[in-house]
Amino acid sequence: MKSDVVIIGGSAAGLMAAVTLKKRSSEKTVTVIRDVVKTPVPCGIPYIYGIMGQVDKDLIPDQLFIDQGIKILQKEVTDIDRAKKEVIFADEGRVSYDKLIIGTGSKPFVPPLPGIDKANVFTVHKDTNCLKKVYRALEPARNVVVIGGGFIGVEMAEQIAMMGQKAGAEKTVTVVEMLPRCLMLACEEDFCLEIEGELKKLGITVKTNCQAGEITGRDKVEGVKLADGEVLAADAVIIGIGAQANIDLAVKCGLAANSRGGIMVDKYMQTEDPDIFAAGDCATKFSCITGKPSGIRLASVACGEGMIAASNLDEKKRETLGALGAFSTMVGQRAVAAAGLTTKAATEEGIDFVIGEATAPNRHPGHLPGAIPDMKIKLLFRKDNGQVIGGHVSGGEAASDMVNIIAVAIQAHLTAEQLAVMQYATHPLMTSSPLSYHVMLAAENASVKLS
Amino acid sequence: MKSDVVIIGGSAAGLMAAVTLKKRSSEKTVTVIRDVVKTPVPCGIPYIYGIMGQVDKDLIPDQLFIDQGIKILQKEVTDIDRAKKEVIFADEGRVSYDKLIIGTGSKPFVPPLPGIDKANVFTVHKDTNCLKKVYRALEPARNVVVIGGGFIGVEMAEQIAMMGQKAGAEKTVTVVEMLPRCLMLACEEDFCLEIEGELKKLGITVKTNCQAGEITGRDKVEGVKLADGEVLAADAVIIGIGAQANIDLAVKCGLAANSRGGIMVDKYMQTEDPDIFAAGDCATKFSCITGKPSGIRLASVACGEGMIAASNLDEKKRETLGALGAFSTMVGQRAVAAAGLTTKAATEEGIDFVIGEATAPNRHPGHLPGAIPDMKIKLLFRKDNGQVIGGHVSGGEAASDMVNIIAVAIQAHLTAEQLAVMQYATHPLMTSSPLSYHVMLAAENASVKLS
Repeated sequence: MKSDVVIIGGSAAGLMAAVTLKKRSSEKTVTVIRDVVKTPVPCGIPYIYGIMGQVDKDLIPDQLFIDQGIKILQKEVTDIDRAKKEVIFADEGRVSYDKLIIGTGSKPFVPPLPGIDKANVFTVHKDTNCLKKVYRALEPARNVVVIGGGFIGVEMAEQIAMMGQKAGAEKTVTVVEMLPRCLMLACEEDFCLEIEGELKKLGITVKTNCQAGEITGRDKVEGVKLADGEVLAADAVIIGIGAQANIDLAVKCGLAANSRGGIMVDKYMQTEDPDIFAAGDCATKFSCITGKPSGIRLASVACGEGMIAASNLDEKKRETLGALGAFSTMVGQRAVAAAGLTTKAATEEGIDFVIGEATAPNRHPGHLPGAIPDMKIKLLFRKDNGQVIGGHVSGGEAASDMVNIIAVAIQAHLTAEQLAVMQYATHPLMTSSPLSYHVMLAAENASVKLS
Repeated sequence: MKSDVVIIGGSAAGLMAAVTLKKRSSEKTVTVIRDVVKTPVPCGIPYIYGIMGQVDKDLIPDQLFIDQGIKILQKEVTDIDRAKKEVIFADEGRVSYDKLIIGTGSKPFVPPLPGIDKANVFTVHKDTNCLKKVYRALEPARNVVVIGGGFIGVEMAEQIAMMGQKAGAEKTVTVVEMLPRCLMLACEEDFCLEIEGELKKLGITVKTNCQAGEITGRDKVEGVKLADGEVLAADAVIIGIGAQANIDLAVKCGLAANSRGGIMVDKYMQTEDPDIFAAGDCATKFSCITGKPSGIRLASVACGEGMIAASNLDEKKRETLGALGAFSTMVGQRAVAAAGLTTKAATEEGIDFVIGEATAPNRHPGHLPGAIPDMKIKLLFRKDNGQVIGGHVSGGEAASDMVNIIAVAIQAHLTAEQLAVMQYATHPLMTSSPLSYHVMLAAENASVKLS
């Protein structure tokens, strides 16, 4: 079998690469190979357990891609024969390629905790069969401990609590986070506190500055012993403490890669083999703000890299801007969103910056339906050139699109002064007043400090 | 009486100028003079009649500004003595100024229709007393005709229909629009059709390509006779066909101004008198896209100009980028938003452009709560340099913030290629998938055409 382009991996990076190829080089045959039967929507996984109530409701529909002429194969890839330019399957079949894109993603970190291999202790794999096992274990569980208070941990905790409520059998859910706050790597502390507050309102216990020491129980988990000696009862444990690049295949075929950063790629997402590109969680990244190596692994970054890799197969046309951490989530009634650096991260980078903040209702007047009286924004600007390096929003569902104004501004190197004097659409039923549109007001407040 | 800065006009431009001064030059005394008792939120006016149900619920709170040290005076200004640098009141009082900002806004266009002065025929003034008169007339009205299908007309029609429903006495509401579609000056035709569809779902009759010829009735309006002879029964008529600069005071004190464009100002919002600035609907504007004179009158533009005028009083520091038409509205269940040029306007300007479009749900997977399956975006990019010159969004409440990504991109002269390779925050509960985030996808679709 032969395909002009073979893509290993059927999630964000791989699918985006495939779509981009069909858009830009429609004559090429494109084959996406994945080892799972179906591909879950990765960011949707937590919502399986609460809102959706079913693993099979969280699928990326294959047909959408098949309709674009993309071939999808379910195969386990065991090796790449770079000399013959062939991908080798576990069933000994092969597919040859002109160009290969590796999008093998990441594997969840498994902490070296005593007892971690007991039954009902799970990391979150992007595989429907694994997700169904988790579902079956969570359903009857009364006590659930979530280790890790990042996005996945916080969202899982919220949705597991909802799972119990929907079933009329409330679960005792505890989040255990090593850092002083949940979401702290991405969000400002005051925004983290808002989300912790929402979790508490939902009856979830949040334990920060807190480390798990041991998983207790016989074959099956019975508790999580914390570093301070306290033991939390647990019928099931979810571990969400991050992910590392899945470089197994790349290493096997001799491509330069390291387990921390991923498969070595240049700005064109090309590996040291000119016919092989890598994109997404499995590839090395640098920060679009500092230019330094970045550990950010996000579907949005993966999509961007998949698009860039696919655009460069025949000719180097597009460079990555570097990875931008642009996140959002909604917990309870509150959305928080972030793009770029936090105060803590910028300080650690040694960047001299000023902060511009604004709080205003997301409606005007502020009593209109759907009003959130205290929608907040916090923007960070470099002192030396005024450029925005971070933005944090909390409020309602529009927070996610508002933070993308900042995401664009960061990637286009816009300044406080530029964002302050720009004009923005406003509407009584959807935004704050034009006198206090969050982005403008925070930028102006920073611009005053910079002038 | 003396104030370092006197601002005539207490709406968007005036208040933004005052706030900016208190932020940037807190030692200056700032007095805002207005002729109305209270200032309505201008964009909120339509919602008085439906959602709010009361004129006094749509007020800009004075206290917010008083707390910042701004003095607010209710006075009718009759003249400006430029030689003495004094503003003269109808009650013969005076206030002297070092610097003066004129923000006298606009006056609704009154079409030369026979019968226009009959009772219960209203244009929309930003004055609570006038708005209360309109309220009292609309309450008992069974048949209401709205002349003009721009933003104000469409929103008034929707809210008047709601007023009837809330009272349990449905009103027959008709919108009469001269152009082929409602909202056509701001929005793409397919987006206009969506809004017309929403109006129709609410039982409102939409008559496009249709001109009012005469207001019939004795003293009080009884009907609107259309150019084709049809007569629409009407107990009340609302006219919302646009506004013209209120230049009366400027003309009276000898400042260069014309009734079409407004008070002549430079890029610093300075009039020909170096001590007098003008901002908002009363001031001349140019388009930030074409550089040509612009008739756009929006609170968002006024706020920007107020900020710029206030920043330049002592030293010319900030230039306006030119007016950007950035709008949004929500009618029934659909939000539409626009920034910059429509296809029609760009064509009329002789600009060669390509369009990038995308349609995707605003959730992923697309069945999550709050999903709008067909959230749409349409972007216009110049063929010569790839820069974005227009963006149109329809969907849910986040449309308003999504269009502001485009507003920023237009004002920063970003290209299709830049917007395509950028990364954007996405979340299952708030946005489309990262594979199909609207801005990215539409920009990539255009970039393919441009490459």
